[in-house]
This record gives sequence, structure tokens and C-alpha cells, in this order.
Amino acid sequence: MSTNQPTQTMKAAIMHSTREIRIEELPVPQIGPDEVLIKVIAVGICGSDLHYYSHGRIGKYVVDKPFILGHECAGDVAAVGADVRRFAVGDRVAVEPGVTCGRCAACKEGRYNLCPDVEFLATPPFDGAFVQYIKIREDFVFPIPDSLSYEEAALVEPFSVGIHAAVRTKLQPGSTVAIMGMGPVGLMAVAAAKAYGASTIIATDLEPLRLEAARQMGATHIINVREQDPNEAIRTFTNGRGVDAAWETAGSPKALQSALGSLRRGGKLAVVGLPAQDETPLNVPLIADNEVDIYGIFRYANTYPKGIEFLASGIVDASRLVTDKFALEQTQEAMERALNQKSECLKIVVYPNGLI
Amino acid sequence: MSTNQPTQTMKAAIMHSTREIRIEELPVPQIGPDEVLIKVIAVGICGSDLHYYSHGRIGKYVVDKPFILGHECAGDVAAVGADVRRFAVGDRVAVEPGVTCGRCAACKEGRYNLCPDVEFLATPPFDGAFVQYIKIREDFVFPIPDSLSYEEAALVEPFSVGIHAAVRTKLQPGSTVAIMGMGPVGLMAVAAAKAYGASTIIATDLEPLRLEAARQMGATHIINVREQDPNEAIRTFTNGRGVDAAWETAGSPKALQSALGSLRRGGKLAVVGLPAQDETPLNVPLIADNEVDIYGIFRYANTYPKGIEFLASGIVDASRLVTDKFALEQTQEAMERALNQKSECLKIVVYPNGLI
Amino acid sequence: MSTNQPTQTMKAAIMHSTREIRIEELPVPQIGPDEVLIKVIAVGICGSDLHYYSHGRIGKYVVDKPFILGHECAGDVAAVGADVRRFAVGDRVAVEPGVTCGRCAACKEGRYNLCPDVEFLATPPFDGAFVQYIKIREDFVFPIPDSLSYEEAALVEPFSVGIHAAVRTKLQPGSTVAIMGMGPVGLMAVAAAKAYGASTIIATDLEPLRLEAARQMGATHIINVREQDPNEAIRTFTNGRGVDAAWETAGSPKALQSALGSLRRGGKLAVVGLPAQDETPLNVPLIADNEVDIYGIFRYANTYPKGIEFLASGIVDASRLVTDKFALEQTQEAMERALNQKSECLKIVVYPNGLI
Amino acid sequence: MSTNQPTQTMKAAIMHSTREIRIEELPVPQIGPDEVLIKVIAVGICGSDLHYYSHGRIGKYVVDKPFILGHECAGDVAAVGADVRRFAVGDRVAVEPGVTCGRCAACKEGRYNLCPDVEFLATPPFDGAFVQYIKIREDFVFPIPDSLSYEEAALVEPFSVGIHAAVRTKLQPGSTVAIMGMGPVGLMAVAAAKAYGASTIIATDLEPLRLEAARQMGATHIINVREQDPNEAIRTFTNGRGVDAAWETAGSPKALQSALGSLRRGGKLAVVGLPAQDETPLNVPLIADNEVDIYGIFRYANTYPKGIEFLASGIVDASRLVTDKFALEQTQEAMERALNQKSECLKIVVYPNGLI
Repeated sequence: MSTNQPTQTMKAAIMHSTREIRIEELPVPQIGPDEVLIKVIAVGICGSDLHYYSHGRIGKYVVDKPFILGHECAGDVAAVGADVRRFAVGDRVAVEPGVTCGRCAACKEGRYNLCPDVEFLATPPFDGAFVQYIKIREDFVFPIPDSLSYEEAALVEPFSVGIHAAVRTKLQPGSTVAIMGMGPVGLMAVAAAKAYGASTIIATDLEPLRLEAARQMGATHIINVREQDPNEAIRTFTNGRGVDAAWETAGSPKALQSALGSLRRGGKLAVVGLPAQDETPLNVPLIADNEVDIYGIFRYANTYPKGIEFLASGIVDASRLVTDKFALEQTQEAMERALNQKSECLKIVVYPNGLI
Repeated sequence: MSTNQPTQTMKAAIMHSTREIRIEELPVPQIGPDEVLIKVIAVGICGSDLHYYSHGRIGKYVVDKPFILGHECAGDVAAVGADVRRFAVGDRVAVEPGVTCGRCAACKEGRYNLCPDVEFLATPPFDGAFVQYIKIREDFVFPIPDSLSYEEAALVEPFSVGIHAAVRTKLQPGSTVAIMGMGPVGLMAVAAAKAYGASTIIATDLEPLRLEAARQMGATHIINVREQDPNEAIRTFTNGRGVDAAWETAGSPKALQSALGSLRRGGKLAVVGLPAQDETPLNVPLIADNEVDIYGIFRYANTYPKGIEFLASGIVDASRLVTDKFALEQTQEAMERALNQKSECLKIVVYPNGLI
Repeated sequence: MSTNQPTQTMKAAIMHSTREIRIEELPVPQIGPDEVLIKVIAVGICGSDLHYYSHGRIGKYVVDKPFILGHECAGDVAAVGADVRRFAVGDRVAVEPGVTCGRCAACKEGRYNLCPDVEFLATPPFDGAFVQYIKIREDFVFPIPDSLSYEEAALVEPFSVGIHAAVRTKLQPGSTVAIMGMGPVGLMAVAAAKAYGASTIIATDLEPLRLEAARQMGATHIINVREQDPNEAIRTFTNGRGVDAAWETAGSPKALQSALGSLRRGGKLAVVGLPAQDETPLNVPLIADNEVDIYGIFRYANTYPKGIEFLASGIVDASRLVTDKFALEQTQEAMERALNQKSECLKIVVYPNGLI
Repeated sequence: MSTNQPTQTMKAAIMHSTREIRIEELPVPQIGPDEVLIKVIAVGICGSDLHYYSHGRIGKYVVDKPFILGHECAGDVAAVGADVRRFAVGDRVAVEPGVTCGRCAACKEGRYNLCPDVEFLATPPFDGAFVQYIKIREDFVFPIPDSLSYEEAALVEPFSVGIHAAVRTKLQPGSTVAIMGMGPVGLMAVAAAKAYGASTIIATDLEPLRLEAARQMGATHIINVREQDPNEAIRTFTNGRGVDAAWETAGSPKALQSALGSLRRGGKLAVVGLPAQDETPLNVPLIADNEVDIYGIFRYANTYPKGIEFLASGIVDASRLVTDKFALEQTQEAMERALNQKSECLKIVVYPNGLI
């Protein structure tokens, strides 16, 4: 259906079992009329990739066949389907990794992240982006300006989570926000809070490297929770008032409790991180007495154009988060480093078509 | 400041210590220029009254002096301050029991229920309505039509909580809602769900009497949680989908967990009831994956005119909830019965100026 | 692609020029894998059908080839595409007449009525429903319960406009609303206002027949604007306050001015009807001083399941609006009657597969 | 009630008839227990002041007695009432010029700008701020940081109108906005659009001086409507799409029509300026087809703390708008200059206690 599809095979980093990734040859995907073939240039490693890699599952999603990880990606258009009008070969693009049906009630109401039929990269049974080429439906491909690097374009994915949290918690210019956990999602959430005009952005973590990165992303205050009680510090930073919004990105029950406790009356809490255990004890009388709003955050919707625009405008230099770069052949090495060196690494990027 | 203030003393039911209420004489309150003196006709007993009566405190609010309970009240205007224009002596009225400052940020943003300077009847140090006369600022007094009984007017208070939950959880005509706990607040919440057009209203409780009352208030389905698993039953009643909204009114951790588990993706949970213990284990991954919204409910704001209109329109016959009537002199007896006979009583009403 | 598609030809009412409709034979449409073939039982005549019929165009939409009108329709499933799972042959259904792309920014944000690529029945160049069979994508087909007649199912289309106006103007239980113009859209808007719990519903028109129908649909007050000044009457009906919301459905500049003038401070105006001329003088200082919100209404989105549920619940008996019934062969006669007998007709229905 | 009230008389600039202002001695106001006495340092001249000065009325508000203009003001606390806790003598403050009742339905719903009992400076019958001292209720006084000049603090008033427009039209980071009319309100609206993160801010006017100032306030594009068709230019600046929001601040019917025409589908229009005549012809089919939202803007609510914070953060240097400074004795001269030299003046400031 496309006149210009590469016909050769490609390399793929395939997970065969936990902590075992092999490089193999696969056919380049055949695109349909409404799809775009992407030559994948940069793929960020995300916490969910690491979780599948080390545990073989996340909740109900189980890796039970050879499987390809990676969903934060950017690249070049390599071929376009017959009906594709918005792209031409060679265009630099970011990829929104979940293709939704567009027809269910969730999609029609504008909450397509809740589409039950979504096909999300690197979520079983759908393979991911640690390959040289992927195909994706045209409407989930977004052009990026020359000023945006491929790495930054890949970072639009975690940035989108932060943008979605900002929208869900109705962040306004001048708002105060505390963000718990400075992994890549937390760091990009700091950037999102800055983009939404928060005047006070308080970041918490255990690792000095991450807290320093938080400052670079726009945090106005940082708290090392090894050294300071976060709730006390947040009260101090807000003149005793508490924050308008708190976002928990670490999946830590304790951080979630801190986040809830740090809110002003009428404050809003975003639950972004997934704790390992199902149940976290939460202070329910506090929720009621303070009329807290709590918003679950599941991925994002309608964030990519904004995310690209914000990063392209230079609001933050997200490329500073990239601490490590690996070729596709080193994917397993990259995953191991990400798992083991949390005090040294922020975002690790894999380059399926060669380091750049 | 008023030309027509009763000058005599009045009877009051004064709590001297836990489970000890005595009838004493007090001066009738002196009203200011913007206040109304109310001859109290009917006062409902609320769970918070019972809690103060039996425990002497609720959280940080401590009964540390002789204290008057009761805050769900209605009566007749007995005198008006010099600047009062909306009322005349003899008007039948409902009383919104919290006088807010009108000047703080919360008040100015329309969330006056979060006013830090509110003076709320029967919340220490502010005395309540188990007296023959109370005074209150004009803007918290609301005229009632002849078709509304004093008992129904008093019930606008718990009804307001349900209305507030409906507004906070954005209940729409055709919504499905599960309401946990059929005490008076839960029962009036059923009526609120009906007023907001919910097409499926599922009520849960342990007591057949309460579940039967729930049907009368508008529940389309009832679940006795002694006999049925609520989450299973709710899935059945919603064709496997889950409810759009769930409101926990019982203060039961287990009911709160059920409420959370009963939601559809994108559903909304209202936390109305206060559990006895601070911490309730909640399924946090579920909150995130399903993008649940959770809304704390603290009293209500801007509900009285609507509540009066809804009850006056005959949408439900709330007077059916009144199972017991006591004169002011029997307040202690009324409280004891409310504490001990939960399987027999719904709403117990005290009549400070004589049974009617 | 379907195993059970009727293969015969079918009758169609084809407009060849203004006020000229001929009955011809056409092939039954071939359905795609995600489409449903509908045996059309009932089609309501809408004002836009009449406008195309008499003027040959509406704004930029021009009838420049033989064309089929009709878009308010219901029928039976006659065949299903290979991928269709929700329907079986024989199912009774309502048809939402605009198929949207599901992929543009408007669709993804939940405002699919603004999709630039919508294919809307009876809007050039897309043919309509005055035929025996139409095909439509599965997600725009909705099952109807046995209790709902085909005529009522067809009326879900104009009802949807009213529901959309209710949602856009944030109608709440207890709201007061004035609805200008009691054509079928206005009458179904009255029903929508009732479904959304409006306590005061004021209907205006010139025709006694329509005002009487408004009462049957739920209007609490009616105003014949030949006899009464609508703004004066509305002030009277609202104790001088003005209405919370006003919806103009007639396309009359004068009615729009009345609607604007009838609002309370902070009131909300829905612009539903299209005036013949582009420019209508509006009182701009009033808009600013009263902080009016004005909402343009273009069709609807996410209304069909609700609309079907509301009508099925018996909130109104919409079938009373059907004043005239015609077989497909009499489509031109039906259109002429609709054009010429506004004082006698409310909704005229055409039955492509025979009168029922 | 205050221990530290100045007892002397003060100078006031009193309007006796149109274009006639005399300096007279008045007693310094006596403050109540909840009031603050302000030594007025800087007062901006607003378009409404000019309108009263030249026409003697604005709509229903008529100057029918000696009257004091001026409502955009800042100064020092000179005395505090007995119950005032938030201020001390000497505090530098901005004054929100409308004191609302805090008790009506509008106030309680958070829309206090619609309070029917507001007492607004320089709106008959309430005198304004062209005096050496004014008194005002404590909750309408806001502390300003040292980094904010008195002139900037006075400009928080017109800035508030822009903030209110941003909130009402739901401006988001990355939004595109067109602002019509670069008088002081329009210029501060540009600053508000910048504070709310608009990425494209298009300013229109006739005067090069004002358009240049617009650039300094944050406009990314300017249009001199004498030279360019604004709608064409706006389409060009937005790649044919139209803007997300348009705000008309000039009170010009033609600019309002341009604003409406410049919107994308689903765009939002704020009506800020008041045309001299009541009726402006508006394209109603466009409003409906494009599902435009139109929001009337009447003053503002809950904007002062934000406005002070935004200006103090240095987002714009609003003091650059001050082109002329006059002592109180020259108030008439200042008004005449403001009336007659629109091509030379932006904001003119009067200093009741001496030029600074």
C-alpha cells in the first residue's frame, strides 16, 4: 500500500525471559493505508520497561512470549500508507505510543486513554520500539521542529504524564505544587508544572543527583526525604498553608501519604506512581475534612502537540536528563544499568539505528 | 436592635459530660442588627451529635464545657434585627447551621464550607439548637413553603450533604450511583441522587429497616451486605460495567473499599463518612489505572435553596424517615435511643417548643 | 463482507431539484466490515431537510446533484459487517446520523461534532435516509428497547440537540430555563430540560398547537409572543429574577434578543437556531454587565445513549409529537405539507418500508 | 475604633460637573473596626473615569452630586480598625476597589463581581480614590512586596480584568489568543495572556505607540488595523486555523466582529469592552456552526493575590505603561490629557500625596 516501504529486514531487541534480551532479525513491518513507518532513532527506557524486564509482568499484563520493550520513541518517517496526507518520508517525528479505537464511549468523550481496545507499545501483547522500524497509525505521529532533538521528542512521552497531571489537577499560574519522586516521570512532571506556571514547585527524592536535576527542570525547592521531613518542609515553603496540588510519581506508599498530608484545604492530589502492593493506608478523615480531590492518572490524552510545543519553546532543556546512551545491540546492558545504578542515571536512551 | 424580641428566658438541653444532658434555663439570645431569632420547632439528631454525646469529642473538636448539641433545625422567626429585610416575625424557616465569614479566600471562591472561621452549630465552642431559641445571621436562614413540614426542613441539612456529593461527583441524569450506608445521611443522599436524575441508585446497608427506607427514598436496587457481596451485586446491576459514582456515607473502611471497587473506569468516589480510625487501606493501583476521581465531602455550600425546592416539589417524602419524636425535656432519652436502637430508628427529632 | 446482506435493489426518494422529489430504484448499499445495514423504518422530517428541499442549499452546503434527504431515523438491522460484534440481524436501533473520523483533534478532545471530516446524512455530498436501506458505521448505531417506538427512536436526533444544549449551558436540577421556538427541536428541547431537572420551563412560540405540545413535553409556562411580551412574562414567572438559561431554537433574531434579555445575571444562552441572515444585533453591554455566557450549539456529541434512556424511561411521551405519517412514495407530499401547514403539523414521519 | 487614625482633613479632587474638577478639603474618613485607612500614593486613570468625567454617566450610573473619581489605587496603611489583624500602619498595599456583601447568592457562589450590593470606588454613589485617604474593608486590601512599585500595584486593577478573561476563556499554556484594543486594559490583558502561558498573543490597535507597548507586554504579533485586515492577519499568524481565544477590550463593534471571526471552531470570545451603542450586529450562524463560547466579562473576582504575584515575579514590567504623572492638584489637567492625547499616552497616574 506504500510505494516507498523499505523491504529489508531489521534488527530487534527481543526479551525472551526476565533479564534476557537478544538481538534478532525480523521483517520490517508492513504498513496499512493509514499508517506510517518510523525509522526509530531514539527510545527512552521507562520504569515499566524495567518492570517487565525484571519481573515479566505488570499486574494483569504478562510477558508470555518473546517480546519487544520500549515505548518512548522518536524517529524519521520511512514510508507512508496510501491514505496518509500529513507526512512525507524524512519527516522528523515523535510517536504517541498508544493507538486507540476512536469509537468507544471513552474515546468519544475525549478520554481516549481509557479506551479498552488501546494497542500500546510494549504492553503485552503489543510489541514495542526497541527495533529499527515500527509502524503506527498516522494520527499518533507528530511532527517535531528542527530545534527539538530526537531525545527530547522521546521525552514527550513521560512529559505527557506530567501535562496530564497538571490538567487533571487544574494547575494554574501561581499554583504551588509538590512532586514526589524524581525519576524521569517526576522530573518531566516538574517541567510540566513549570510549563503550567506553578510559582512554587517542590521536589522530593532520596538521590542528590535526581534532586539536582529537579532544580534544572524548574523546581524552586528540593527536599531530600532522607534528611528532612517532607511535610514539615512543605509547610515551611508555603508559609504554613500547604500546597495547592501534590503529585506522587514514585509509587511509594510513604510518598503518597506525604503528598496527601502536604495539601492545603481544597487541594488536589494526583496519583501517578503505582505502588508495588495494592493497598496503601490513607488518611480518610483528612480527605473528607479538607475536601481533597484525588485524581488517578493513567497515561495521558491530547498532550503531544502541547508537549512538543512546550519543549520546543525552550521552557526547560530536557536533554540534560539523558545520562546514558546505548546502541540497540546493547539494550540488555542498558536495562541492567538502569536497574542497578539509580544514583548515577536519569534517562537512558537506546538508539536502534545507531548512536547519534 | 429588634423591636419584637422575646425577653423571657428559655429552656436548653445542656450536655455536662458524656451521656449526661440536663434541662436548664438560659437567657434568650440577643440578636444583632443582621441576625434573626428563631423559635426552634424541630431538631434532628445527627451522628455527630451522638458522637459528641458518647465520646465528648470529634477529632480536634472537644466538648470541654457545658455544651448544647443539635444542628439540623427549623422553626419560626421570632424576632429580626434592625437591618434584616428578608424576614418577618412568624415566617417558617430552615436554618443552615454554619455561619461563615464571607471574607476569606475560601468564601470568596465559593467554597465557604472550607471557611476557617465558620461558626457551626453544635461544633465546639459554638452551641447548638437543642434550645427554644437560637439566633443566626440572616443569610443562613431560608424561607420554607407551607407544603414543607418542619421535620423536612430540618432534614435539608443532611440532604445538603447528598446534594453536595452529587455536585462534586458531577452526577448527571442517567448516571448510575452506589451509596454505601443508609443512616440518615445515606438515605437523604439517595434522595439527592434521585433529584439529580440518577437512573440506577444502589443502596447498601446491614439493616433491613434502612434498606427498606432507601427504597422509599428512591433506591432502585438494595444490597444487604450481610447477605451479598456488594461489588458482585453492583457489577450485576450495571451489566458488568460498574457505577459512574459511589458515595461512602457510613464511615466504614470496608464500605469505602467496596465503593472504590464498584466504580467503572473514570468513575467518581465521594468520601462522606468519617471512619473512626485515621488510616484506611485503599487500592492505589486501581485509582491510577481506572483514573478514578475521589472527592472529599465536608458539609456543603450553596445547597439550601435547592434542597428546600427539591423536597417541596415532592420528589421524595422525607418525613417518612422520622421514626421517633421527643420533647426537649427528653433529649437525653432521645440520644440514648438513637445510640442503642439502630435497627429500629431512622431519624429522631427533638421538639424544643413542644411536640407537634 | 457480510454473510446476510439483502441483494435486491431498493426504493429511494431522490431530490432532483428544489421541490422535486422522485421515487427511484437504487442498489442496496454494500457494507464494509465495520458497518451495519439498516432497514429504515421511520424517518422524521427536519427543518434542514425542508430548507434543502425549498432552497437547494444551507450556507456552504449546496445540493448540486440528485440527492437524498432525511437524517432522523430508526429501523432494524438488516445485515452486519464481518467485524461487527454488537449487533445481530433484526435488532431494533436508532441511528446517529454523523460518522466522524475519530482521529482529528476535535474527535480526540471529545467534541466530535466539530470533526471537519464528518459524514452527516443528508448534508451534501452525503445522501440521507429517505431510502429503504442505509449503511452506517457500527459505533453510530444504538440498540433501542422494545418500549421505544421507531418514531421515538428517530426523535432521539432532535432530542440530542436539546440534551447538548442542556450540557453546554450546565443545566442543573432546579434550574429555570426559557426555550424560544416550539418547532420539533424546541419541543424536544423542552423534554431535555425536563430530563435535566429544570423546575421552571418557559416555552415561547406563535402557534397555539405548538405551545400546547410544549406543555405536554414538560413546559411549566407558555408564552404566545403574539399576545405577550416574552421578557415581561419571563420576569413575572421568575419573580423578577430572570432565567438561569435561555435556548433559542427558532432561528429568529427577535427571539434571540428576547432570550438574551430574559437571563438573570450570570445566566447562560444557547444559540441553537440559525437565523436566515448572518447578522443579528445583540445587546453587547448587557452581555458584559451581566457576565452572560453564550454557547453556540452545533448538533451534539455523546447524547444517543442518554437520549434513548430518557425517552425509554417515559419522562415524556414524544410520540405525541408525530402529527402526520407518509409512505416513502409520498415523500414530496410530506415535504410540502411540512412546508405549508406549520399551524397544523408538529413532526411529520416518513416510512420507507411501509406505514406502520 | 482605631488608635492611630490621622485626624486632619485631606485634599480631594471633586468632580462638580462634566469636565470640571476642583480641589477641596474634606474630613479624613473614619474607619470602622474591620476597615483600613489607606494613604493613597498612586491612582491610575481608567476609561470609566474619563467617561464619567466627559459624559457624567455610564449607563444607569449617573453623577448627580459632587463626586470623586479614581479606582485603580495603591498606597500605605495609615490606620487600622480595632478588629483588623492582617495589617499594620506603614504596610504597602494594593486596593481591590469593590467591597461586596459576602452574603448574597452571587458572593456565596464565588462570583462576587456580580454582587448586587457591591460598593465600587468611583461608581455612583460611591466616591473614588482621587483623595489623600480612603477607607476600605480589610479583605479588599492586599500587601505588596517591596519589589512592586505603587504604580504597578495600581495596575493590578486593569490586570485583574485580563486575568478574569483568561480564567473565563480557559486559557491554557500553549493557547493562541487575539486581543483587540491596546488601551491600558488591553495592554494588561496581553500581560495576563502571557502569565497564563499563551504561546501566540496577537494584539490589534490603531496607534503605533500602543502596539509597541503591546510588544513590551508580551504580544508575539501586532496588527495595526488601519493597515491590515485583522482576520486575514490572524489566519496567517495561526496557519489558517484561527485563535483559541479572542478578547475584545476596545468597546468597538467592528473589533468585536473581528474577534468573533478570528476564532477557530470551538474557540472562546471574551467581551470586555463596552460599545457606546447597545446593539452590535453579530454573526449568529457562525456562533452556532463553530460552537463558539462567548463570555461577558464584568470586572473580576479572586484576582488580586495572583495579579500581585504575577507582576512581582517580573513576568512583565508594567511600569513601562506609565507615560504621565500628575499631582492631585492637577487631576483635571490629567483627565484632559487622557481624553485628548490618546496617541501619546498609555497610563496616566495621579499622586494624591505628592509625586514620587
